[in-house]
Amino acid sequence: MTLNPADDAFAARLRQSLPEAVFRSPEPRYLEEPRGRWAGQCGVLALPRDVDEVSALVTAAAAARVPVVPYGGGTGLVGGQIAPEGPAPLIVSLERMNAIRGVYPTENVLIAEAGAILAEVQLAAREAGRLFPLSLAAEGTARIGGNLSTNAGGTGVLRYGNARDLCLGLEAVLPDGRIWHGLSRLRKDNTGYDLRDLLIGAEGTLGIITAATLKLYPQPAAQGTAIFVVPDPEAAIALLSLAHARLGEAVSAFELIAGQGLTFLAENLPEVRQPFDQAPEWCVLMEVGLPRGLDPEEALADLFEAALEEGLTSDGLIAQSQAQRDDFWSVREHIPEANRRVGAVSSHDISVPISRIPEFIRRGDQVVAGLGGFRVNCFGHIGDGNLHYNVFPEPGRSKADHANQVGAVKRAVHDLVHEMGGSVSAEHGIGRLKVEDLERYGDPVRLDAMRAIKAALDPAGIMNPGAVLRA
Amino acid sequence: MTLNPADDAFAARLRQSLPEAVFRSPEPRYLEEPRGRWAGQCGVLALPRDVDEVSALVTAAAAARVPVVPYGGGTGLVGGQIAPEGPAPLIVSLERMNAIRGVYPTENVLIAEAGAILAEVQLAAREAGRLFPLSLAAEGTARIGGNLSTNAGGTGVLRYGNARDLCLGLEAVLPDGRIWHGLSRLRKDNTGYDLRDLLIGAEGTLGIITAATLKLYPQPAAQGTAIFVVPDPEAAIALLSLAHARLGEAVSAFELIAGQGLTFLAENLPEVRQPFDQAPEWCVLMEVGLPRGLDPEEALADLFEAALEEGLTSDGLIAQSQAQRDDFWSVREHIPEANRRVGAVSSHDISVPISRIPEFIRRGDQVVAGLGGFRVNCFGHIGDGNLHYNVFPEPGRSKADHANQVGAVKRAVHDLVHEMGGSVSAEHGIGRLKVEDLERYGDPVRLDAMRAIKAALDPAGIMNPGAVLRA
Repeated sequence: MTLNPADDAFAARLRQSLPEAVFRSPEPRYLEEPRGRWAGQCGVLALPRDVDEVSALVTAAAAARVPVVPYGGGTGLVGGQIAPEGPAPLIVSLERMNAIRGVYPTENVLIAEAGAILAEVQLAAREAGRLFPLSLAAEGTARIGGNLSTNAGGTGVLRYGNARDLCLGLEAVLPDGRIWHGLSRLRKDNTGYDLRDLLIGAEGTLGIITAATLKLYPQPAAQGTAIFVVPDPEAAIALLSLAHARLGEAVSAFELIAGQGLTFLAENLPEVRQPFDQAPEWCVLMEVGLPRGLDPEEALADLFEAALEEGLTSDGLIAQSQAQRDDFWSVREHIPEANRRVGAVSSHDISVPISRIPEFIRRGDQVVAGLGGFRVNCFGHIGDGNLHYNVFPEPGRSKADHANQVGAVKRAVHDLVHEMGGSVSAEHGIGRLKVEDLERYGDPVRLDAMRAIKAALDPAGIMNPGAVLRA
Repeated sequence: MTLNPADDAFAARLRQSLPEAVFRSPEPRYLEEPRGRWAGQCGVLALPRDVDEVSALVTAAAAARVPVVPYGGGTGLVGGQIAPEGPAPLIVSLERMNAIRGVYPTENVLIAEAGAILAEVQLAAREAGRLFPLSLAAEGTARIGGNLSTNAGGTGVLRYGNARDLCLGLEAVLPDGRIWHGLSRLRKDNTGYDLRDLLIGAEGTLGIITAATLKLYPQPAAQGTAIFVVPDPEAAIALLSLAHARLGEAVSAFELIAGQGLTFLAENLPEVRQPFDQAPEWCVLMEVGLPRGLDPEEALADLFEAALEEGLTSDGLIAQSQAQRDDFWSVREHIPEANRRVGAVSSHDISVPISRIPEFIRRGDQVVAGLGGFRVNCFGHIGDGNLHYNVFPEPGRSKADHANQVGAVKRAVHDLVHEMGGSVSAEHGIGRLKVEDLERYGDPVRLDAMRAIKAALDPAGIMNPGAVLRA
């Protein structure tokens, strides 16, 4: 079934049923994505103000077989938000639907429209004395609808789960233009198939999320942050088990940092205060959020003593103030920027079963070394089994020098991940970047089921064509 | 499309490709369900020993258009496990696939086959020093495949979530007989549509779950249990907020108990030790699971003091021993049995937004009183907004005396629940009992999407026909 472009005739038809204020000529940002891999196209840009306008737009697109690309904050890293190929689409940006529709502190529930910026959702929760725990680098720009459509991860997953785990209900426009009113505030509702989780993570290919009921959490009574030097990744994982045994789910973040990352940071962002004079080969950034009655510095000091005794750490720093906590986090948060300045040959957002991480790091280094002279910066959410495994040129060379090896490096790393029961997209999604990876590594029975679901809900294939599944 | 019975000819064909040991003549238990509402039928009973045998069975059924009813522990309360109507089905019991395939304590992961009994999964986790937190009355009989297919709830949902939240991956046989190998041990994997959550809660209508990767948790360092007398349901909810503010997610259970329930218990099961000499109108059973460094009795005593000061409680008991903890739980766990002995006119497994519970209880009592003289026992997982709202005859009358009012009572309660943004099946599912309720109260757009998904994945409609969706 062929699709038609969102041409002048289609634009004119839209204007018959929707007010002029909905439309705007597209600024460049709607046609770009953060990594600069693709240039998008746009036939018509619409900025609807309510779900009925979204419904009218999609209904018209369905009737005309015009592709629809939903647009959130534009921070996605896999090109899910732009259409570089095929007929020029109708871009539906949710940015005007950014209201917090309600906060229910007693229920630990907040209802936000899809265009609400993640940081604003966090703030609204905080103002109600609650925590919305989704937290990621792009939170000042990313919008909650996009976070849900991509099942965003970040640093709070260990304790609180992915975006999927933080959603109770959705309002969405399905590919035929009809509105699903599913903004449930219920914790338990076993009445039929889980349409919510089908739309979450579908990257806009099964409909447009327009609002969501989100789970809030109690704010921890006290928080603490520490950096422990660990001899190797095995010790990092054993340290996590030790921390869990003592503090349970109060361990709210557990991030692996490689010496290579600290070195990149020192070389490229010397203004970021480093925790150690000499970069250790491996260290772990840990955060705990504790109930009333426990002192975080004491709990972390006790954990350090126990870890020292078991040989799981040799040195550690426990933040004594909010400023120190911010400093520790600043190290972790600036590593991606330092990486960008060095310029990766290939970067990988992968996960493997947690107990296999040390083996993966060992074998990954061998695989990469077998392809040439490279440096690896491997860091990330080790408590979730999710590593950002990034491959860089050796000093004095640039990524341009390795342009012809990018594919080989990526393939070799992904093959290893797949062989080890891992995922080649742990948190960023498939978008347009990893469609081939999904075809190569995905379970064929599951892929067929995905295609059948897509055809059932979007028979004309108008919703974000080319993302996740081949158009 | 008409289905064919699992008749002798079909049985003979099955025996050509599967060993005789797979088949057995059906005992009555496969044709009964706990509430005795329906009598099931059976053409062929198969007890496959591995996923390949399940696949062969479903493949044959798909070719012959024979209905397939998956069977777990048989404890479901909505008739999802039996086929009282239509052609006699092939019943596929998973009971022989009951192995724990692997335990990965470092990863907090366990892989169980669908036929593993829930209590055995809990035990395997405990033996590895971990917690599998799904806990419900039928845990000694229910099997994990059924728990997942119905997205079971229970007493641990407040802290740990439903069955859905405890599953990382599935192995399943889809309606065409093909095997989806999805036993991922990953915490993060954003590669395409969430087929896992689609099968979870589908009550066997989209395929047969044959094994699952389950999430384990650290065992809390110490646990405590208390019963607080509260003046009313408003206070119960405010008490939960207070507990959350002080102890965070360490609050692991929060159950409302009505005086009516304690009275039924005293009258029908006098051997169960009661916490108070005189049954209070409302009380709350609370459990906390704390990290190292906190004493549960102290934390609960502090909470009691704070609650007393805010007028949220007037009396309380904090368990001082494991025996006392067991006694407290025994009260909660025997209420359903006492209810059965009294004999409910109508029982309802409902949820409403947590902050609306007091209003629901008030209005529910009015609605029921408007229909005649009844007693209400309202109890359950108030922390999840999930109440078991059960309506009983007045003393000296029996449920038989109200046989002609059952429908009216149920309808009135469900109408109220729906009006208040609630669910008429919070944790038990739809099965065959609530198909009409789903049609009446379900969002029509979502229902159409469900039907489209069912038709896409099971075009012949062989999988558990008549459950969830009308056959």
